Amino acid sequence: MESVVAHRLDAARVGRLATVSSDGHPHVVPCCFSLHGAILYSAVDAKPKSSFKLRRISNIEASHFASLLVDDYVEDWSLLWWIRVDGTARVLESGSEYDQAIELLVDKYEQYRRQRPPGPVIAIDITRWRAWPGPESWPSSS
Amino acid sequence: MESVVAHRLDAARVGRLATVSSDGHPHVVPCCFSLHGAILYSAVDAKPKSSFKLRRISNIEASHFASLLVDDYVEDWSLLWWIRVDGTARVLESGSEYDQAIELLVDKYEQYRRQRPPGPVIAIDITRWRAWPGPESWPSSS
Repeated sequence: MESVVAHRLDAARVGRLATVSSDGHPHVVPCCFSLHGAILYSAVDAKPKSSFKLRRISNIEASHFASLLVDDYVEDWSLLWWIRVDGTARVLESGSEYDQAIELLVDKYEQYRRQRPPGPVIAIDITRWRAWPGPESWPSSS
Repeated sequence: MESVVAHRLDAARVGRLATVSSDGHPHVVPCCFSLHGAILYSAVDAKPKSSFKLRRISNIEASHFASLLVDDYVEDWSLLWWIRVDGTARVLESGSEYDQAIELLVDKYEQYRRQRPPGPVIAIDITRWRAWPGPESWPSSS
């Protein structure tokens, strides 16, 4: 993918992660993330959750497919854009890739430096990038 | 649902709509919307699209399930919140409900007053509301 798209994706502070439940229902949550080449990492952090076993985790265990969207809403609709990555997701509980992912997230978010994410990490192996409109339409300053 | 949650949902200018393709892949796009009781309307508008037949439409025709998320990212994570509605979606091409939905969208978005959305309308019949954290945690000023 064009590096300008990857750069803009990784610069975003929040994404919206979509997964699918075992019975075919969509699920979408906001999440923090960090991009590393063609892999996107997101951690289950210490923000209070309604249950220990998060639906995003059980969905990924059930169906593996995941999609993450980044966009920036502004009232001047001529400036709207979004980037979406689709891929297959894995849940990491420990190990060297888990440790590396946590380091990437801690590097990106100073909030994680104060409280490291204790939960599992979601790794999305990106298989498709979509950018709307194409990056050729983007202001060169952004 | 508590009216404070419905009010905050409808006050949001953008949502992220998740659907599922016929082969079980999640899909997520930003969209404008308007809430009307327990139905949420979103229109395919005149912003340039990559194809005439949008994936969100073919997904809804295939699986009906839809989920829309509203959130507001801020760096003070103690202030984060999101609202999500899940439901079954219908595609409206014309008729009185279509006309009413367009009016609601035109009322909410002055951008639509300049250019009415020409495309079909997605109607989500909401079956479940989720708010995180619970609205009892929300600042009373918001």
